[in-house]
Amino acid sequence: FLSVSLLTSMHNLRENPNHLRYDAWCGVAHGCTRKLGMKICGFLQKNNNLEEKITSFKERSSKDLLDNSDRDSRFRRTETDFSNLFARDLLPAKNGEEPTMQFLLEVVDILTNYVRKTFDRSTKVLDFHHPHQLLEGMEGFNLELSDQPESLEQILVDCRDTLKYGVRTGHPRFFNQLSTGLDIIGLAGEWLTSTANTNMFTYEIAPVFVLMEQLTLKKMREIIGWPDGEGDGIFSPGGAISNMYSVMTARYKFFPEVKTKGMTAAPRLVLFTSEHSHYSIKKASAALGFGTENLILLSTDERGRVIPADLEAKVIDAKARGCVPMFVNATAGSTVYGAFDPIHEIADICEKYNMWLHVDGAWGGGLLMSRKHRHKLSGVERANSVTWNPHKMMGVPLQCSAILVRERGVLSGCNSMCAGYLFQPDKQYDVSYDTGDKAIQCGRHVDIFKFWLMWKAKVCAHISPNNCLIFILYLCCLDLSHYLYTKIRDREGYQMVFEGEPQHTNVCFWYLPPGIRDMPDGQERRDRLHKVAPKIKALMMESGTTMVGYQPQGDKVNFFRMVISNPAATRSDIDFLTDEIERLGHDL
Amino acid sequence: FLSVSLLTSMHNLRENPNHLRYDAWCGVAHGCTRKLGMKICGFLQKNNNLEEKITSFKERSSKDLLDNSDRDSRFRRTETDFSNLFARDLLPAKNGEEPTMQFLLEVVDILTNYVRKTFDRSTKVLDFHHPHQLLEGMEGFNLELSDQPESLEQILVDCRDTLKYGVRTGHPRFFNQLSTGLDIIGLAGEWLTSTANTNMFTYEIAPVFVLMEQLTLKKMREIIGWPDGEGDGIFSPGGAISNMYSVMTARYKFFPEVKTKGMTAAPRLVLFTSEHSHYSIKKASAALGFGTENLILLSTDERGRVIPADLEAKVIDAKARGCVPMFVNATAGSTVYGAFDPIHEIADICEKYNMWLHVDGAWGGGLLMSRKHRHKLSGVERANSVTWNPHKMMGVPLQCSAILVRERGVLSGCNSMCAGYLFQPDKQYDVSYDTGDKAIQCGRHVDIFKFWLMWKAKVCAHISPNNCLIFILYLCCLDLSHYLYTKIRDREGYQMVFEGEPQHTNVCFWYLPPGIRDMPDGQERRDRLHKVAPKIKALMMESGTTMVGYQPQGDKVNFFRMVISNPAATRSDIDFLTDEIERLGHDL
Repeated sequence: FLSVSLLTSMHNLRENPNHLRYDAWCGVAHGCTRKLGMKICGFLQKNNNLEEKITSFKERSSKDLLDNSDRDSRFRRTETDFSNLFARDLLPAKNGEEPTMQFLLEVVDILTNYVRKTFDRSTKVLDFHHPHQLLEGMEGFNLELSDQPESLEQILVDCRDTLKYGVRTGHPRFFNQLSTGLDIIGLAGEWLTSTANTNMFTYEIAPVFVLMEQLTLKKMREIIGWPDGEGDGIFSPGGAISNMYSVMTARYKFFPEVKTKGMTAAPRLVLFTSEHSHYSIKKASAALGFGTENLILLSTDERGRVIPADLEAKVIDAKARGCVPMFVNATAGSTVYGAFDPIHEIADICEKYNMWLHVDGAWGGGLLMSRKHRHKLSGVERANSVTWNPHKMMGVPLQCSAILVRERGVLSGCNSMCAGYLFQPDKQYDVSYDTGDKAIQCGRHVDIFKFWLMWKAKVCAHISPNNCLIFILYLCCLDLSHYLYTKIRDREGYQMVFEGEPQHTNVCFWYLPPGIRDMPDGQERRDRLHKVAPKIKALMMESGTTMVGYQPQGDKVNFFRMVISNPAATRSDIDFLTDEIERLGHDL
Repeated sequence: FLSVSLLTSMHNLRENPNHLRYDAWCGVAHGCTRKLGMKICGFLQKNNNLEEKITSFKERSSKDLLDNSDRDSRFRRTETDFSNLFARDLLPAKNGEEPTMQFLLEVVDILTNYVRKTFDRSTKVLDFHHPHQLLEGMEGFNLELSDQPESLEQILVDCRDTLKYGVRTGHPRFFNQLSTGLDIIGLAGEWLTSTANTNMFTYEIAPVFVLMEQLTLKKMREIIGWPDGEGDGIFSPGGAISNMYSVMTARYKFFPEVKTKGMTAAPRLVLFTSEHSHYSIKKASAALGFGTENLILLSTDERGRVIPADLEAKVIDAKARGCVPMFVNATAGSTVYGAFDPIHEIADICEKYNMWLHVDGAWGGGLLMSRKHRHKLSGVERANSVTWNPHKMMGVPLQCSAILVRERGVLSGCNSMCAGYLFQPDKQYDVSYDTGDKAIQCGRHVDIFKFWLMWKAKVCAHISPNNCLIFILYLCCLDLSHYLYTKIRDREGYQMVFEGEPQHTNVCFWYLPPGIRDMPDGQERRDRLHKVAPKIKALMMESGTTMVGYQPQGDKVNFFRMVISNPAATRSDIDFLTDEIERLGHDL
């Protein structure tokens, strides 16, 4: 259902720099719009010595605050002597307002410096140390919990050290996880969330956030394609919990008596998922009392996509063994290959055998926001439930994961316990807005605000009959992974793990050092190749230049899984990565 | 095992203002150390017009940053015109550094203003609106997700409005939840956590946080009293999930085959918990496949504490019915009454019948840090697992909850799936520091840093043979609840829900408007009384002056549950609350 005119207009956007919307985003990633960047930000260019100014900003701000005309650079230590201030001097202490503001601004200075450095390619991604080294104390950084309160000066030093010895997950050369990047709007949203410090479980203490969650979940359901965005859902602490919700909800739909009588009230239930799927489905089957042996793994094609015929055969087999097939998980964006299971064909089988269809779009759900790529989730509108993690492809700070359920009532039916002492029915407002009783949690962190704010700041919607939207930024990541794929697929020393263009930004490959390239296929070559990726990864971490993940999969020895979810990454970073792999791996 | 000399020295600390440690904290709560406060913060007092200065701080900072000598107050709008800036102009955009810094500092300005107002009693706790009012849009505050990117100016307005229509959970007169307050050190910790934006699941991407978690969990186990702090544990997204972990872990310990074969491989298992316990135990019994009917509720005494003889009788009865008693939850600090179940007596029964003892100290666990109050959890060292939420009594920002397990190995045995593609065994560092596989989550938010930082900044440890520690701040909350209790227990118009001094800061009471006081006991009086608390609460919320919870419990009609966990609260706030209840409830 991709609209040709839209694709054409996307093309035009690329060609015509006056169409800022697409290029302004992607110019960053493609390094092709220096001119454009100058044009956009021209009004800022008068400030040439920016870095220097920002570096001295905090000092001067402090001076101004205290109305002190002395411009001596040691001012802060003299006038706001944090070494003599303690937590007890902060609000709510009497006269605590000034030290509180001074302290928070000092913290912000540390954090904004960290933000700047995160985007600076001349900084390292990490400064690696082994656990025993950090535990012994690095240059006075003492992780042990103290017996006496430390001064605010020491607390500030602890903050700096914590960041110093951590990993810059927003660095343009950090490719290690599905969730990378440091989104400034999301960061602002998270700072605000921390400051508001409330709890999602009732409207009365989180009125704005509860409504934001409701509106955002509805929009997500519309994008999935459920009629009028009807249904239910909730933000949970991560994709694994969201997937657990899907299994629980399915069980409640088919066997509601399990809620009161336990699993022994149901027949022997079986679940199905791809052998490439995320391990959370297996964790859920263990935790919820199904047992991992009753989770049946489905075979995949060479690209890691479920083979529908294998599902049907295994359903028939399970029924023949007296089991009741109840639940199928289709993965939209697998962890390693980035594969999308064929949802329509799986949905057909689910309908035929009356099984719940869950789509785990934790990683791939973000593509629903792209006209160009959402066809990979074609059929998702037939799912009974969907997991979608904006903290992955959409760059929302961790944690931000939604479980969406098509049928209204089943999620709350499954989880509600009607605890009158927590959820009073006789409040003055419409208590259907109290979300606590449909969660398995009681207190629930506010995960919605950063996402809502990013949506407000970024989403370009082009309403169509299919309600597609474009979250433009992340198209760049897909373009970059295409660049990497075309660069290395025929390059000497590289071997792709599977043939053909990757479906998501996952690019899986072996790097073969020269000493291995001509070895005959066999166990010895496999053994040596298996050790290459771990060795290169260890060297990368020790040099601190970049990070990328590796793993074995099935009978395939360790390979790199490159994954791109950070809009700060550019082609130069991809080139840097391959250069680094070759530099570190050449002599292995 | 309370040490007399310690109590004496606590008394001395109160009497002698040179002993700052106790008084500096509690002076805030007791309003008795104005002189002391002046003394502590004397060096700050030269800055008289602080508020005014801070208000204009951001404007002037912006001017300095841009090196602009024009001191016109409209500077910000002229020079940093956020109305022409969009998310695409922020980092990683070229020339994005300046707008990024400007934007973040503007956000911080909004947040620090909010922090100041939170502690200002002249501000309202909330500005209540019904859901339909907020959804219709308040003075231009549009919650609907937009179709086009909004300017940064609008994003900043959205941030201000979000806070404006929210609830100040850190306000000294917000008493609505078990988790209240706005801890400045915790806030700084949370801002840093957001900026670091990483994931707890492997050491390689969260080395510092993983070690902080390990050290903090060990310290918590030492405080519980387990030998050498041995055992295991993990921070989870809240007390309900922590309690769910305890049930899962217990089941794995006794019936490990359930993990692979499901609940049908076990006999009919039963769980026990107080009728006053948190509903999360019931949610866990439903979710994990036990069934809520196999959760047996224990009778309590008039103070809400489990009657051990009732437990033993019900264990015997369950066995007679062919069930296998497996798990007992003892609550340390119940949600409504703040009751502590008698752990030693319950532990005796658990040992006798070979059952897992879990202590849900989500609310009461914080008292383990107090020499004076930790006796209420006496016997906790005999538990097999403990839930302890620093985000409740210890004032850590939400979410911060720990599940602690006495026996090492059982938590990871229960949850590990050995997903080689996520947790590679061939890394260069000691992979026992990769915590992901013992969690039911995969990605896991960093909840430890704020707590670690608060501990560093605040904990006073007086090592004794019992390893007791004093987290001094929260003694004030207990003192305040004692003040409230003594104030209202004999006051006309009040009736206590149970006799005697509350065990925690929960004070449960009915307010009887004059028109009800002389009514004969009976259904009509009950019906009228049942409506009083909801009406007063609604009026409170509409006037925005304070918030306190109410609920029915068993056959008791709606009563107020006052709870104090905010060290910013003082006696004057307690007086304000009772005055407000009387003002609003007098004519009901």
